[in-house]
Amino acid sequence: MTTPTQSGKDRVVIFDTTLRDGEQCPGATMTHEEKLAVAELLDDMGVDIIEAGFPIASEGDFAAVREIAQRSKNAVICGLSRAAFKDIDRCAEAIKPAKRKRIHTFLSTSPVHMKYKLQKEPHEVYEMVIAQVTRARSHTDDVEWSSEDGTRTEMDFLCRCVEAAIKAGATTINIPDTVGYTTPEEYFNLFKTVRERVPNSDKAVFSTHCHNDLGMAVANSLAGVNAGARQIECTVNGIGERAGNAALEEIVMAIKTRNDVLPYTTGIDTTMLTRASKLVAAATSFPVQYNKAIVGRNAFAHESGIHQDGMLKNAQTYEIMTPESVGVKQTSLVMGKHSGRHAFIHKLEELGYQLAGNQLEDAFVRFKALADRKKQIYDEDIEALVDEEIAHAHDRIKVLSLTVIAGTMGPQTATLTLDIEGKHVTTQSTGNGPVDAIFKAIRALVPHEATLELYQVHAVTEGTDAQAEVSVRLSEQGRSYTAKGADPDTLVASAKAYLGALNKLTSKRSKTPGIEQRIHSTDVG
Amino acid sequence: MTTPTQSGKDRVVIFDTTLRDGEQCPGATMTHEEKLAVAELLDDMGVDIIEAGFPIASEGDFAAVREIAQRSKNAVICGLSRAAFKDIDRCAEAIKPAKRKRIHTFLSTSPVHMKYKLQKEPHEVYEMVIAQVTRARSHTDDVEWSSEDGTRTEMDFLCRCVEAAIKAGATTINIPDTVGYTTPEEYFNLFKTVRERVPNSDKAVFSTHCHNDLGMAVANSLAGVNAGARQIECTVNGIGERAGNAALEEIVMAIKTRNDVLPYTTGIDTTMLTRASKLVAAATSFPVQYNKAIVGRNAFAHESGIHQDGMLKNAQTYEIMTPESVGVKQTSLVMGKHSGRHAFIHKLEELGYQLAGNQLEDAFVRFKALADRKKQIYDEDIEALVDEEIAHAHDRIKVLSLTVIAGTMGPQTATLTLDIEGKHVTTQSTGNGPVDAIFKAIRALVPHEATLELYQVHAVTEGTDAQAEVSVRLSEQGRSYTAKGADPDTLVASAKAYLGALNKLTSKRSKTPGIEQRIHSTDVG
Repeated sequence: MTTPTQSGKDRVVIFDTTLRDGEQCPGATMTHEEKLAVAELLDDMGVDIIEAGFPIASEGDFAAVREIAQRSKNAVICGLSRAAFKDIDRCAEAIKPAKRKRIHTFLSTSPVHMKYKLQKEPHEVYEMVIAQVTRARSHTDDVEWSSEDGTRTEMDFLCRCVEAAIKAGATTINIPDTVGYTTPEEYFNLFKTVRERVPNSDKAVFSTHCHNDLGMAVANSLAGVNAGARQIECTVNGIGERAGNAALEEIVMAIKTRNDVLPYTTGIDTTMLTRASKLVAAATSFPVQYNKAIVGRNAFAHESGIHQDGMLKNAQTYEIMTPESVGVKQTSLVMGKHSGRHAFIHKLEELGYQLAGNQLEDAFVRFKALADRKKQIYDEDIEALVDEEIAHAHDRIKVLSLTVIAGTMGPQTATLTLDIEGKHVTTQSTGNGPVDAIFKAIRALVPHEATLELYQVHAVTEGTDAQAEVSVRLSEQGRSYTAKGADPDTLVASAKAYLGALNKLTSKRSKTPGIEQRIHSTDVG
Repeated sequence: MTTPTQSGKDRVVIFDTTLRDGEQCPGATMTHEEKLAVAELLDDMGVDIIEAGFPIASEGDFAAVREIAQRSKNAVICGLSRAAFKDIDRCAEAIKPAKRKRIHTFLSTSPVHMKYKLQKEPHEVYEMVIAQVTRARSHTDDVEWSSEDGTRTEMDFLCRCVEAAIKAGATTINIPDTVGYTTPEEYFNLFKTVRERVPNSDKAVFSTHCHNDLGMAVANSLAGVNAGARQIECTVNGIGERAGNAALEEIVMAIKTRNDVLPYTTGIDTTMLTRASKLVAAATSFPVQYNKAIVGRNAFAHESGIHQDGMLKNAQTYEIMTPESVGVKQTSLVMGKHSGRHAFIHKLEELGYQLAGNQLEDAFVRFKALADRKKQIYDEDIEALVDEEIAHAHDRIKVLSLTVIAGTMGPQTATLTLDIEGKHVTTQSTGNGPVDAIFKAIRALVPHEATLELYQVHAVTEGTDAQAEVSVRLSEQGRSYTAKGADPDTLVASAKAYLGALNKLTSKRSKTPGIEQRIHSTDVG
């Protein structure tokens, strides 16, 4: 099941699960708008299949998958479902608007999962596989079946289940390394054996899904491809359960850079990888470590600052890919206080944002306010400002004014006025540090029980007049809500970020937390 | 060249280069005291060989290697040197006090490096290999030779150089993947071929050194071991040039967890891995991403917050290693305002710190001040406090007092008093945000030209009265200096961090920047 391309090289399908496996990891919750923005970028970047969510998990997940399906351009839109028919049917309903749609349905096949998690006998599991795939096929021709905990599944049973799934109509067979346990050699042999032993294996595309618990997710995925798999499941920045999934950008650039030994092609526009990394980092508030491959700030660090003798003589001495090939641009001075609306819209388009109506107006007002305060406005400043605009489009609570007195003398004091759905309220609080004082003031004005799990400040651009970006994560009843705020004043950004998380939390309360929590026990990989 | 252990399994030597390849990456500069602390922990953890630095690089590097050598317990202390005799001699002098010492000398062997970087013909390089190893052997019996850019070196020439190096007395042969270019299969074949073709290959231990540019450093290292290498060069948290090196914790836990297919042993006490990760993250101010394998905050995230149905029924359903095996402890409430000096010292020892004299007194004073302000004091608070104490032991500039007025009304104002070597000076500045105002006040009191490269705030512990930890990176003449400050007040922590970096910068100015800069062109791997 390979698709030789014009170049004569086998096409490997990129299946992105940032919005499903990525978004379900603790603290990575995205808003509806953030999910749409990520999906649009993935589609534009050339991702073949976007796993947009787990529709049965919550009304929010369902709505996101459905709207992503409606807006889809070229990508196949996929939803995840367990074996239960109501899961599968709900998934089918969510992806219905998509031009091209896939149902991804999974079931555990390893002894430990069958015994303890499913509490079923192998023969029952075998029958469920047939039933779930058959049900999924009643909705769409494009059905993927996954053997959860596949790398710890007994080979005979795995082959029987795979054969049955293909016979029932599965067009893609995914064998995930759910616990991040395998090695390249072992995963290679697994795919080789299954493809050789399953009589109808040529009727399906085989897929890898690797977790990075032992640091080998990328190498394992590529080993699977070397053994005949032609789909790789991965996430932007490698986010996902525990140590995360195989990183999309690493997979794609490994294939591109080492095409002599990995003779495959993907449909990814690699110059969009950096932009995708930044968008996902912003939406999840998961920072990318400096030395992260491909997208970390140091990944091309010989380009800036350190003068490498060899690099100056010939870039090839230390460089196997160019920064431009993954979309790294030199930060450029782009806009200032004299830039008008037209230039602003043009810059937004250049950066990949399409805003209209009130959202555009609000962003422009904020841009002008920033330009009054900050001499040099970089692309990152505009990205921060617009990302925040998108994230906070529908907030019911907003900061009107804030004054803080802080320093070594203590106690720190915050005087805060909020707009709560049009009503203005003010209070003054003291705290242990200025941020504590601000958060106490918010709690006084908007009483709530959520726990602060994370508080983090990033300067968005260089220089002492940098615009600060703050991330805040609140948790309530085992569910986390992360938001960010951007402002030249760190303390104002802190207040905005806290309120952003609080807005998310209060808007999610109305949904179905019971299912949302339970769903986390059913990670497919 | 394998050492079967009592268990009958081959011993793999762990060669840590956190203090050399890790420390030389942009922004990761550590102070002398931080280097000593890291080396001591690595030694205690069971690292076989500690590459402590590049002695010719600067007086600071030389002094650090020498003091680490003096303090060494069980580990072999290694220094790096280029092929020049003055490099090798300087290295020998630095490691002299160690009980067990190694000189690691390297030379580029790939066509592109020989032509553009060395500007030498292969036959000249070949002669240099013999000369450099011979010179190193005149100082010590333990000599490692590395073929820089080994994975892009012509096989015939590589074999000739390796044979010559062993003949000249090299006891370890390292074949680095300097540009992070190789794949597991290719790297396996490289070691297999070299070991088969070089007639005297059984006289040396072969070593891997992998960079993570394509996300495969760990898998590549293990592939090298499968082909007969018995030393792995790696770093804590995988820090290092560009996308970093193979991560020590991932290598060690992969061998331990998958000992059925990786039948080797290491001497590492894995329960110290988390502590090592935290210490290196603190010393370099390089944050560890949430989903980093083994040591990221989400690596064992099924343990906290998310209720995984499967996990509740049987931990093995999703867990291939226990958090305890890598030293993850539940954050425990440990100390409060009533804790005395004895309890404080005991807690420090439990956390692995040994402070004495003024350093202990200062830390205790700061602990009591913190306990007055913060209800619950966690292990992390004490670690932050002590790490900062160690880092700022010899600072010439300190914050005496700070008052800040900030908020949406602007302009933000900072009134700052500093102690500069005993002299007290005060100023007031306004800025674009409170942090900008503070940094402008510092620049007014201590004029300097350095550029602010990074400003980052982390809350050290949970809760709104968290102690904030701020990182600041300043750069001057292509060299970066990072420092952190901890305080319940983010703004005070910001001032401390900025001054910490400034103190590092001014103390390094007296050294040999010419060589420091040049040295970055000579990364061995």
